[in-house]
Amino acid sequence: MATEIQKNLAEKNAEYAQKFDQGHLALPPAKKYLVLTCMDARIDPAAAFGISLGDAHVIRNAGASARDAQRSIVISEQLLGTRESELHRDFARVSSRHTGCGMLTFTNDDAHAIVKKNLGPAALAELGALDFLPFPELDKAVKDDVEFLKVSTTIPDDVPITGWVYEVETGKVRQVV
Amino acid sequence: MATEIQKNLAEKNAEYAQKFDQGHLALPPAKKYLVLTCMDARIDPAAAFGISLGDAHVIRNAGASARDAQRSIVISEQLLGTRESELHRDFARVSSRHTGCGMLTFTNDDAHAIVKKNLGPAALAELGALDFLPFPELDKAVKDDVEFLKVSTTIPDDVPITGWVYEVETGKVRQVV
Repeated sequence: MATEIQKNLAEKNAEYAQKFDQGHLALPPAKKYLVLTCMDARIDPAAAFGISLGDAHVIRNAGASARDAQRSIVISEQLLGTRESELHRDFARVSSRHTGCGMLTFTNDDAHAIVKKNLGPAALAELGALDFLPFPELDKAVKDDVEFLKVSTTIPDDVPITGWVYEVETGKVRQVV
Repeated sequence: MATEIQKNLAEKNAEYAQKFDQGHLALPPAKKYLVLTCMDARIDPAAAFGISLGDAHVIRNAGASARDAQRSIVISEQLLGTRESELHRDFARVSSRHTGCGMLTFTNDDAHAIVKKNLGPAALAELGALDFLPFPELDKAVKDDVEFLKVSTTIPDDVPITGWVYEVETGKVRQVV
């Protein structure tokens, strides 16, 4: 039986599909850029960052970690952009973390202890030495991410990369790098 | 100097922030669910899946891979939900892949060859034996993802998990599992 959440998805999607007229959009992002942000429920990247449908790849994970997103970032640029290598370099990247992020509230040791307590030793073993990638300082995490992407050999040197903080309290972005 | 993309972000965000009145939202997703979908530019999860601001975590990566998202999924449920273990189990998950996905168009060997050709051997070495997680069949990939999450010891057995396909041509979702 469908849960309330599944019913909501089906009903809201039916309304969306009825008005949908963007079926012509091509696979490569029209504006050739990529936004990396957090999975946090309080962020709507399309609305808050002005991304029109079809314009940009949007990657979201816990904490907006660039390390965690590396597979997707390389695929975005090298495989799903334009397939013409002279255009790959037009990709720009925006990396944004945000205030009030839950990733500021725990350490790896905390996370492993909670998994063990709530889910048991089998779950802990399944995750192994997984780095949950928490971070204690917001601006420093943004700077570290941009640095990680800039020194990475997987991203051409002339790709613009900027780092931002999104304020969940005000809806404002603030450029850090 | 700011690029056109960065200027667009700053300008559109200023408009968004001026009307923003959701600064009161709490960190845990109000409706306690999680949506996993692809980074594809043609998907607007909030609009297409009826997700109101503050309601759900949204994870996005290349191909909507559940394996790639495991860190974020565990954090969502065990650390950023409610912190009360009896409520964690209210989390539901929706995993959706989509038609026309670029991940259907290449193999791991293709991806490694393209990285080597475009970025050189240093980039190939940095990525190592990275699995790009491409998939040759859409519905099968959704089924495999749901199965992966269902057998995982990191997710309690009573969490509802469903698998969907989003059609970029029509804006419609179709439930697979």
